Amino acid sequence: MRPHASRAEIDHVCDRIREFGYRVHSIEGEGRVVIGVVGIGDVTACLESLEATPGVESAVRISAPYKFVSREFRKERSSIRVDGLEIGGGEFIVIAGPCSVESERQIMETAEGVAAAGARMLRGGAFKPRTSPYDFQGLEGEGLKLLRKAREATGLAIVTEIMSDRDVDLVAEYTDVMQVGARNMQNFALLKSLGSCGRPVLLKRGMSSTINELLMSAEYVTAHGNPNVILCERGIRTFETATRNTCDIAAIPVLNELTHLPVILDPSHATGKRSLVPALARAGVAIGADGLIVEVHPCPEKAVSDGAQSLTLEGFRAMMRDLAPYVELWKEGRATGARAAA
Amino acid sequence: MRPHASRAEIDHVCDRIREFGYRVHSIEGEGRVVIGVVGIGDVTACLESLEATPGVESAVRISAPYKFVSREFRKERSSIRVDGLEIGGGEFIVIAGPCSVESERQIMETAEGVAAAGARMLRGGAFKPRTSPYDFQGLEGEGLKLLRKAREATGLAIVTEIMSDRDVDLVAEYTDVMQVGARNMQNFALLKSLGSCGRPVLLKRGMSSTINELLMSAEYVTAHGNPNVILCERGIRTFETATRNTCDIAAIPVLNELTHLPVILDPSHATGKRSLVPALARAGVAIGADGLIVEVHPCPEKAVSDGAQSLTLEGFRAMMRDLAPYVELWKEGRATGARAAA
Amino acid sequence: MRPHASRAEIDHVCDRIREFGYRVHSIEGEGRVVIGVVGIGDVTACLESLEATPGVESAVRISAPYKFVSREFRKERSSIRVDGLEIGGGEFIVIAGPCSVESERQIMETAEGVAAAGARMLRGGAFKPRTSPYDFQGLEGEGLKLLRKAREATGLAIVTEIMSDRDVDLVAEYTDVMQVGARNMQNFALLKSLGSCGRPVLLKRGMSSTINELLMSAEYVTAHGNPNVILCERGIRTFETATRNTCDIAAIPVLNELTHLPVILDPSHATGKRSLVPALARAGVAIGADGLIVEVHPCPEKAVSDGAQSLTLEGFRAMMRDLAPYVELWKEGRATGARAAA
Amino acid sequence: MRPHASRAEIDHVCDRIREFGYRVHSIEGEGRVVIGVVGIGDVTACLESLEATPGVESAVRISAPYKFVSREFRKERSSIRVDGLEIGGGEFIVIAGPCSVESERQIMETAEGVAAAGARMLRGGAFKPRTSPYDFQGLEGEGLKLLRKAREATGLAIVTEIMSDRDVDLVAEYTDVMQVGARNMQNFALLKSLGSCGRPVLLKRGMSSTINELLMSAEYVTAHGNPNVILCERGIRTFETATRNTCDIAAIPVLNELTHLPVILDPSHATGKRSLVPALARAGVAIGADGLIVEVHPCPEKAVSDGAQSLTLEGFRAMMRDLAPYVELWKEGRATGARAAA
Repeated sequence: MRPHASRAEIDHVCDRIREFGYRVHSIEGEGRVVIGVVGIGDVTACLESLEATPGVESAVRISAPYKFVSREFRKERSSIRVDGLEIGGGEFIVIAGPCSVESERQIMETAEGVAAAGARMLRGGAFKPRTSPYDFQGLEGEGLKLLRKAREATGLAIVTEIMSDRDVDLVAEYTDVMQVGARNMQNFALLKSLGSCGRPVLLKRGMSSTINELLMSAEYVTAHGNPNVILCERGIRTFETATRNTCDIAAIPVLNELTHLPVILDPSHATGKRSLVPALARAGVAIGADGLIVEVHPCPEKAVSDGAQSLTLEGFRAMMRDLAPYVELWKEGRATGARAAA
Repeated sequence: MRPHASRAEIDHVCDRIREFGYRVHSIEGEGRVVIGVVGIGDVTACLESLEATPGVESAVRISAPYKFVSREFRKERSSIRVDGLEIGGGEFIVIAGPCSVESERQIMETAEGVAAAGARMLRGGAFKPRTSPYDFQGLEGEGLKLLRKAREATGLAIVTEIMSDRDVDLVAEYTDVMQVGARNMQNFALLKSLGSCGRPVLLKRGMSSTINELLMSAEYVTAHGNPNVILCERGIRTFETATRNTCDIAAIPVLNELTHLPVILDPSHATGKRSLVPALARAGVAIGADGLIVEVHPCPEKAVSDGAQSLTLEGFRAMMRDLAPYVELWKEGRATGARAAA
Repeated sequence: MRPHASRAEIDHVCDRIREFGYRVHSIEGEGRVVIGVVGIGDVTACLESLEATPGVESAVRISAPYKFVSREFRKERSSIRVDGLEIGGGEFIVIAGPCSVESERQIMETAEGVAAAGARMLRGGAFKPRTSPYDFQGLEGEGLKLLRKAREATGLAIVTEIMSDRDVDLVAEYTDVMQVGARNMQNFALLKSLGSCGRPVLLKRGMSSTINELLMSAEYVTAHGNPNVILCERGIRTFETATRNTCDIAAIPVLNELTHLPVILDPSHATGKRSLVPALARAGVAIGADGLIVEVHPCPEKAVSDGAQSLTLEGFRAMMRDLAPYVELWKEGRATGARAAA
Repeated sequence: MRPHASRAEIDHVCDRIREFGYRVHSIEGEGRVVIGVVGIGDVTACLESLEATPGVESAVRISAPYKFVSREFRKERSSIRVDGLEIGGGEFIVIAGPCSVESERQIMETAEGVAAAGARMLRGGAFKPRTSPYDFQGLEGEGLKLLRKAREATGLAIVTEIMSDRDVDLVAEYTDVMQVGARNMQNFALLKSLGSCGRPVLLKRGMSSTINELLMSAEYVTAHGNPNVILCERGIRTFETATRNTCDIAAIPVLNELTHLPVILDPSHATGKRSLVPALARAGVAIGADGLIVEVHPCPEKAVSDGAQSLTLEGFRAMMRDLAPYVELWKEGRATGARAAA
């Protein structure tokens, strides 16, 4: 309550809280009253109602607003099965591939290259979210078919982006993991429809979304029936312009404390610059991510999108060699039962 | 180019630029070469390709990436007709109403109250984007019908939010203006489908979107066939927590320099706090916005959403009285041919 | 407390709180205990101590951390006398002048020009904080002497920046108001020394400082003996690059709710672009600032600093004419006893 | 130039550039002219002057604004000697200790504990920058003497903060490394005075400073005579509140590309939370930092400042054990001549 709130105001607030089905505990100090609220109910509406009530200085939530995705709901890590693999289990999973599927030759060459170097899944966009309507928007259905071809040739599981709830059935037919891009992290119509898509979801953090909002979006998918959500830190928007985004790498151990869901790192979007990717990938392994998603292109300078941040196939091979001893340490950490990030 | 880039690298870059259909002008300084690029083509792909090319330090765009929405494309202000009104013309338009449509009584009482106080359009959400899946998600179809009733009773034009390209036809049947919320500003599937919806679009700035990105999203709608786009500044996300968002009020004159489209201000979401709304509304008039969109609720403390930032009907009437002399000055500015924000 | 904190942990926390001299009220809910703390003591140390104590989930402060500058300490507005003027009283004060004092001719011409157009105080930097060591650092002592000359010629009071606690006596000898720049807002050695400088202090908000931190810095000056502090909003650092900074204009009514100190707006640094200054200045008057500080230069393109955001003398005259009716409305608001920003 | 700038405007701009001593190259495209500038001169003044000149759309700097600290100036890494140690050489240096020096017992116990666990330097604040004037401000001179005692007892080199150019001689007498805190990163009076202090400087990145500004501040110290600057990433201010700051870990490889100076990481301030420190420390080693600076306190819950982010002595020992294999990999990287971060 504000200092010097009247008794009538205080009583009115207590009544409002009880109307929402909560119990009330008030603390009276010098010149100020603090009211505690305990129970189960529509928390957001209650908080907003209280903020709008005369005499209230502020209404603060103490407990977390999500349930199914929380560590309190499930203490042990979740591992998510994708076509024989497990993300969040005892193996460090590298997903690699081009930003966009451009041609059969490009996607096949990339798929074979990254598989040989140790990647376990193939990424590639058939539907592309582009800031400009004049930029390449993806091969769409044709791109999905090329991804299936690459899957058949290499055995790599496929991760591709879904941009509209209209396309859920179509994309689910072709892909192993449904990727939600940063710009759609709060496209709630899409999140709801993914609750019943029958595929694991890779949910990328919005470029200005808090960790709490990322978990709430995961809760949307889960509450609508799909517990198989993989989270992805890919950098947030800040004032710094030296990198495309600012990698909030500490979000990984923060998430490991708050949720049982697996968390992977995208060092390509986080930096926007090829030369920085291997160093950040090492950091991602060391901090305890469950995997990486990395952009790779056979000829980055001819890529129709994200060329500047794509590794060449040779660059990807070098990165995988460089990561190997860090991945060994990572496995030891998992095997000894300790969470790598704990 | 990087310092000491080789001649072969420089020549290779020039060749790549020409492949994209541009002309090349290079400037050679002490230890560094700068290459200028002129012409028309797929700019993003060219820039990204160059960033990925050996020897290149950075690739910077000088001219604006949008066309139809730019002041260069159309020098005079656009005014957009909505059911007899003009936004962007000689009248200052106030849109008011609740965050969510909750009940017939609530929306009718609000509509009548705001109309009497001078509002020209009614806002109200039937589909609500909520961070939590457990929060009220809107009355959906039922809410649309209540908005139509309010329109029939008061003559106010209706503004309501559209959240998925799936719902475009449904929402367009009931509303006068299709609102795109901040979280969907880069939902490109939705933007494309609004190109052919036959209704003006109110495009809210994403909470971490740049002015340039806002214009690119407006360009999406326009390039897909719908030139009737109204822009809305509603605050951006920053480190400051004293207000819900940080109102980037200078975006209004910046937009007035860059685009011919009308721009309105949402002082409710920009602050999140009822007591700050009237002062910010005055600033919006004074800086040259074309209108305001304001949250009003007959009983904010019982609102299911955004109660803390909603004005009461009495508060709204007081705000309109307070604004009146500022609106007079605004009209004089428009009438003398000077742009208020110029 | 964390969910399922043990009884021993809870008791330990209560003991720690009592050691700091506070009283304890605990609220027990389903699976969670919340502990309220009331009283007077070293709050920051207590909060940090609690955050470090086993079983504690988070420690949140409810009441404001500042005293002398708060509205609770003093309900009526403070007006600060500067050489016959009052900032925060019944008159809207415009401070104008160049970024840097460059030469006698430049400062005299500017002073005479801005005085004729209605400015009441002259700004001008003798000590300049510059990002690069190779940029012009100010005329220092020589600049101070030129400011005194301009004061004698025009009667304008002088505002100039102080960059080190070493220079307090020197600068205080020449100036009427001691300006603390954004980069020094948390230079606590400087703030302490200004407590006894005998001059009003103009405290600019740091480019990434919260409103709360600005008030804490004002509290430093006040707690060290100098209650005459004028606050200044000058834009904060965000992801947006269309303007030099993002003007947090809503900070003005927020500050008017929290503090009795006067608040002015700097539309020049807030935008960094001359063409935006007049529109933002209008917004500043309308929202209830107590004054403006504006950069003006007789020949901006020859200015050694901040040329892009400086008005010409003709531009300043035009802005003052444009502002006049808004200032009239402002005065009416003050005269009717209502705070313009309330 | 703006589109359709006149010939006279273009010629005028070219003349202005030549007045600053640069050479001019202009590129004429369809409807737009771009003017390139090459040479050596007062760049900031020139850019600002151009931005203020009629017809100019924007003035963009292509080459870096710093010299002595750049990789172009010095290709090989700098290692900085501190009392027998080398930072930036073949050894990974851990600096540890409490936020504030509080008592002889506290600092001696910490110093001995961290030395035994493998720390090579002791941190501890005698002058403390605190947001509130009512918080503990440090033991000042007494604290410096206690640090000297701890140095004599353990052989650890001392790092302590300097807050005012007034105190440079005093602090330099007692410490091995002069620390500049985040809030003083652009206290230019202080930076200049450190140019002649005769001690290495540990320069922490400002909480909202860009990488470029950090390098410019290092250039201040260097240009004033002191090339021994160690940079420190300690998190930046963003919208995310789950951690105290957002660790911009990619700044480390970015800095390694731009400068030859050593770079260390502060995982304590970057997160503000003890449980996150070890994971982030691992990431710092893996990404190629030259060392860490970590807060350790024998009894964090009794610390007068930063208790929540301080490790216990036992926690520090565990972290050092956990880091050991990562430090081995780091050494191999350095020994094979490859920069760990390259």
